[in-house]
Amino acid sequence: MTAPSSRTHVIGAGLIGASIGIGLSTEGWDVTIEDADAEAEALAHAIGGGGALSPSADALDPELVIVAVPPSATAAVVAQALDRWPSAVVTDVASVKAPIAAAADATGHGDRYVGSHPMAGREMSGGLAAQGDLFKARPWVICANGAGRDAVERVRALAHALQCDVVEMEAPAHDAAVARVSHAPQVAASAVAAALGPLHADDVALAGQGLRDVTRIAGSDPRMWADIARLNRPALIATIDHIIADLEDIRDADDVGEAVTDLIERGRVEVGRIPGKHGGAQREWTPVTVIVPDTPGQLLRLLTDAATVGVNVEDITIEHSPRQLVGLTTLHVLPARAQELARALADNDWEIAAP
Amino acid sequence: MTAPSSRTHVIGAGLIGASIGIGLSTEGWDVTIEDADAEAEALAHAIGGGGALSPSADALDPELVIVAVPPSATAAVVAQALDRWPSAVVTDVASVKAPIAAAADATGHGDRYVGSHPMAGREMSGGLAAQGDLFKARPWVICANGAGRDAVERVRALAHALQCDVVEMEAPAHDAAVARVSHAPQVAASAVAAALGPLHADDVALAGQGLRDVTRIAGSDPRMWADIARLNRPALIATIDHIIADLEDIRDADDVGEAVTDLIERGRVEVGRIPGKHGGAQREWTPVTVIVPDTPGQLLRLLTDAATVGVNVEDITIEHSPRQLVGLTTLHVLPARAQELARALADNDWEIAAP
Repeated sequence: MTAPSSRTHVIGAGLIGASIGIGLSTEGWDVTIEDADAEAEALAHAIGGGGALSPSADALDPELVIVAVPPSATAAVVAQALDRWPSAVVTDVASVKAPIAAAADATGHGDRYVGSHPMAGREMSGGLAAQGDLFKARPWVICANGAGRDAVERVRALAHALQCDVVEMEAPAHDAAVARVSHAPQVAASAVAAALGPLHADDVALAGQGLRDVTRIAGSDPRMWADIARLNRPALIATIDHIIADLEDIRDADDVGEAVTDLIERGRVEVGRIPGKHGGAQREWTPVTVIVPDTPGQLLRLLTDAATVGVNVEDITIEHSPRQLVGLTTLHVLPARAQELARALADNDWEIAAP
Repeated sequence: MTAPSSRTHVIGAGLIGASIGIGLSTEGWDVTIEDADAEAEALAHAIGGGGALSPSADALDPELVIVAVPPSATAAVVAQALDRWPSAVVTDVASVKAPIAAAADATGHGDRYVGSHPMAGREMSGGLAAQGDLFKARPWVICANGAGRDAVERVRALAHALQCDVVEMEAPAHDAAVARVSHAPQVAASAVAAALGPLHADDVALAGQGLRDVTRIAGSDPRMWADIARLNRPALIATIDHIIADLEDIRDADDVGEAVTDLIERGRVEVGRIPGKHGGAQREWTPVTVIVPDTPGQLLRLLTDAATVGVNVEDITIEHSPRQLVGLTTLHVLPARAQELARALADNDWEIAAP
C-alpha cells in the first residue's frame, strides 16, 4: 500500500533536490532535506524545501529517499542511503541510469531502488533557482530494474505528485535513448559551434536561423555534461561513432552531392519520428510569416489581429534581422486556415513575407 | 550612372527568380523572365513576374541579367549570358560564389559579372511559392570579384530595390563562411537526426526541445543541398573535418568528461559571437516560462497580460508537452523586467514554470 504522501527525505539541495522538496511540501508531503553543503541546506530550508528537517535525519525513518546529488556522486550516495534506511525506497534523479542501478544491486538491496530521470527543460543549477513546479508537465522516466512493485508505485506517486508525465523504461534502453536524443546532440551542437572558430566576426554575421537553432544548446554548462559523458560513455561513444561514420562518408565520397543527399534523406525520416504536439504524429502546421517592426506592442497587435479571424496560433517563431529594426515573425497555423489568416493580416496592413 | 530601374532580365522562374521578378516589377522595374521549362515560365508570367516579356528576349537588350537557375547550372548560364548580352551586367543567386566567379572570369567578361547570394530563410522551391518580398530584410551578399564599380552599383541597386541588407565580401571568404554557418550545420543536423535510427518510437519520444532545435533544419530538401555540396566541396569538407576531429577527440579521450568540457567551452565562446538582434552583440534576455493550456486564445491572453505591465516581449518560444494538453511558453524579456513580469502574470492566475 502506497501512502499518498510518504515521509520523504531529499539528499541534495541543489536546483533539482530543492525543487522536488518544495513541490512535495506544497502538495502536503512530509519532506526533509539535507545537503553536504550547510549553506545550500539552509537556503533550501529558507525557501521552503525542508519544512520539517530534524537535526538528525536518521531519526525520521523516511519511507522514500530521493538522491539529488551531482551525477558523479549519485551511485555512492544511493548505496549509502539503501544501507542507512533499511526499509526506505530509494530513488535518484541522475540522467544516466544503468550505472546507478548496478551500484544499487551491488548493495544487495536493489529491490528497494528505483531509478528516476525527471526531464526538466532548463539547464540551470543551484537551489536559489528552485521552484516546486520545475518538472510539471515534463516526462519523468522510471527505471524499475529489479525493484518490487510497491517500490515502483511509491516513485510513481512521487512523480504524479509533481504532476509529471511518467514513462517506464529499462535502464539500458533509457541510457541508449538519452545518448541519442540528448547527449550526442549536445556534443554535436558544440562541435558545429566550435567550427566557427576560424571565421571573422563579419562572416559569423551571415548566420541565419538554421545555425541559431543547431547551436542553441551549445551554450550549456560544461560541468554537468562532463559527469554525464563519463557515466554514459559507451552509449555516447556509440552515437558519436554513428555520426562520425556519416560525416566520413561525406568527406570520402566520390560524389559528395550523392552522399549529402543520402544523409539528408535518412535524417528526414528520423526527424519525422520526433513526436510533435501532444505526443501524436508530428503535425504539419503551415507558416505565415509577417514582417514586424521592432517596437513595443507589435506582437500583441499581430496576435490580436489573428484572433479576430478565429485562427488558433499553434506556434510562433521570431527571427530577428541582423541589421534592421524589424523581425520576421512566423505564426504556425492549421494548413486549412493559413491563406485566410494571411489575407486577414494583409487587410490589417501587415506585410506578409514569403510563405 | 546606374539607372534606378534597370531593364532587367531574369533567367529561371523558380522560387528565387520569380520572387525577384515580382519584387522588381512591384517597384516599377522593367522586368522580363524566361525559363527552360515553358510551364514554369508561363506560371511566372501569370503571377506577375514577367510583365513585359517579348517573344525574343534577346531583343530587349537588358542592362542587368539575373541568373536564378539551380546551382549546378549557374556557371554555364552565367557564361552564356555574358556572351549573349555584351553590355549587360550579369549576376546570379547561387549560394556558392567562387566557382561561378571563376567561370565568369574564364569568359573574359569577368568585369561585368557580380556574384549575389540573397539569403532567404525558407527552404522552398517552385514559382508557385514566389512572393516579391521573399528577401525583404534579409542579407544579400555581393561578391564584386573583378567587376567594375558600375556593375557592382547596378547589383546594389537591385538588392536595395528588394529592400535587402547588402553585405560585400570576397567570393572565397563567402564560401568559407557559408560552409561553416550553413552548409556544415545542415549536414551535422542531418547526422544527429540519422543517429536516431536505432531507437524505438517510445525512445525517440524522450526528445526534448534541444533535439528539436538541433534537428529542425534536417527536414530540408536534399536536392538543393547536393548541388551546394558539390560546388562548395573544399570548404564543406574542411568544416566537416574540423567537426570530425572534435568528435574523435571525445571518442578517443582517456577522460571523456574532460574532452566534453573542453569542446563545450570552445563552442560556448563561438556561440557568443553569433550576432543577436539587430547585429549587435547577442543580448541576454531573461526567460519567463508560463504553463499555457492548449485552448484557443491563451497566447493572446498571455501577451495581453504581459502588455498591461508594459514589458516588451523580445522573443517567444513554445514547447509542446509530449502527452499533455498544455504547452510551456517562454517569454524572453529584458533581465530587469523579468521578475516584475512573472509577478504580474502570477497575479493574473498564470502558472509560472521554472525560470
